[in-house]
Amino acid sequence: MAEMELGRLTIIGVGLIGGSLGLALRRAGFSCEIMGAGRSVENLEKAVALGAIDHYKTNLSQAVDGAQMVMLAVPMGAMRSVLEQIKPALGADTIVTDAGSVKGSFVKDAREVLDDIKNVVPGHPIAGTENSGVEAAFASLYVDQRVILTPLAETQSQAVEAVQALWETAGARVETLDVDVHDRILAATSHLPHMLAFGLVDALGSLHERGDIFRYAAGGFRDFTRIASSDPVMWRDICIANRDAILVILKSFKDDLKDLEELIETGDSEGLLKVFQRARAARDKYVKD
Amino acid sequence: MAEMELGRLTIIGVGLIGGSLGLALRRAGFSCEIMGAGRSVENLEKAVALGAIDHYKTNLSQAVDGAQMVMLAVPMGAMRSVLEQIKPALGADTIVTDAGSVKGSFVKDAREVLDDIKNVVPGHPIAGTENSGVEAAFASLYVDQRVILTPLAETQSQAVEAVQALWETAGARVETLDVDVHDRILAATSHLPHMLAFGLVDALGSLHERGDIFRYAAGGFRDFTRIASSDPVMWRDICIANRDAILVILKSFKDDLKDLEELIETGDSEGLLKVFQRARAARDKYVKD
Repeated sequence: MAEMELGRLTIIGVGLIGGSLGLALRRAGFSCEIMGAGRSVENLEKAVALGAIDHYKTNLSQAVDGAQMVMLAVPMGAMRSVLEQIKPALGADTIVTDAGSVKGSFVKDAREVLDDIKNVVPGHPIAGTENSGVEAAFASLYVDQRVILTPLAETQSQAVEAVQALWETAGARVETLDVDVHDRILAATSHLPHMLAFGLVDALGSLHERGDIFRYAAGGFRDFTRIASSDPVMWRDICIANRDAILVILKSFKDDLKDLEELIETGDSEGLLKVFQRARAARDKYVKD
Repeated sequence: MAEMELGRLTIIGVGLIGGSLGLALRRAGFSCEIMGAGRSVENLEKAVALGAIDHYKTNLSQAVDGAQMVMLAVPMGAMRSVLEQIKPALGADTIVTDAGSVKGSFVKDAREVLDDIKNVVPGHPIAGTENSGVEAAFASLYVDQRVILTPLAETQSQAVEAVQALWETAGARVETLDVDVHDRILAATSHLPHMLAFGLVDALGSLHERGDIFRYAAGGFRDFTRIASSDPVMWRDICIANRDAILVILKSFKDDLKDLEELIETGDSEGLLKVFQRARAARDKYVKD
């Protein structure tokens, strides 16, 4: 980042994701001006008080005016409207990047709204907690976490390098993936688990015995359902933006669950053991606690 | 516990659950002799070295001979055989209790194997980690955790009180529930989540891109799938022992998941938001992180 001359970075959407980026950049001694933008003055005032941004504007067009880089950290469903609002104020070399969980829909929005996308760098920090809002932001959120960039054929390499440098300043490890591969992988490791957690808690919450049910839940249930406390608006938007990939992996999971159900139904001891052993081996091999 | 004259407690199955009980009792200054029993001499030697038990025997009948209380901390599938082996050595007043995750099947086994069950106190500590074996045991596992006892109509109250005192000495909070209610609640809060976690990891592990898939998994996935690292034998046994209750709740969950799938398929923005908001509210209300 040291080599990059960035006079002003504008972060649109200063919640957990955008706010943590601001805090991380400040902690790293990043010297450029950080302008915040969003709809809630109350939230933006908090962001200034917490040191996540230097100033703010609620008019998006004014907020990006004069910025060398614009970070869109808003729910997927707001991306298109934000792009439309900032378009008139974007300079010829202004880099536009985002932190959305789905890359295909952002690329589609950018292609349709902007005249050219050579300075558009789609990105996704694989980090977050179940909390939302700038009060939940913290400077170390991205340390050693992955950020995936999905540059397009026409994306200028200087733009990619600048966004990579930004995230590395925040402590992240940056990698690049194809847009579709990204959306498929995230559907499997993040979007599907969230559907299952939301679905399970909602199913149990509708049972007559729900008070007792949750009362006797242990630590495993707590961990398993933590992601069901995530921001509902964000997840509604992800479901809509990554619909196709989510439906594919959900179908594949349902088939597997049906097989498991049959093993339980028939009391297939050997078959159950095989599934559980295989799952444990895969988790122990691939996922580090 | 102070009032109870317990000369010898025999713990059959000295793994995470049985071993942690031994360590907890010792830490609390519990003075009676703790005899361990099981099949693996190596594991029992470790248990002695760790201080979870005083001595051990691999012959179960010899191990319970002279014990005032016997704790069965073995997988559900081994309960019946263990009861058969210890039956000849049980005294008229020996209390038999267990730590199994399913109570209906234990009660059935006890009724069928033993001549009378007035001193049988079915129990279930709602505690554990995804690790297994006595190396994973620790003295504070039960502190402030719930232990559910499911005494039967014929169970003697002194036997229930003795088992309650034992668990309270280990730091647990003891409650009683009806056998069927216990099994239904646990199917919902523990057995179903384990099936979903095992099922998800197994489904993803079978995909061609599994290396990348797990590589880009974030903290939420780690938490969500932690329980898929649990002991496969224990979980096979639970599926078989609590088959009916698991199938009922699994079916109910599948119906809910199908509804959610339809909301995603039709892009029902309002409907998705409603489910996610309801789930988050239920979790935030009932589950404390």
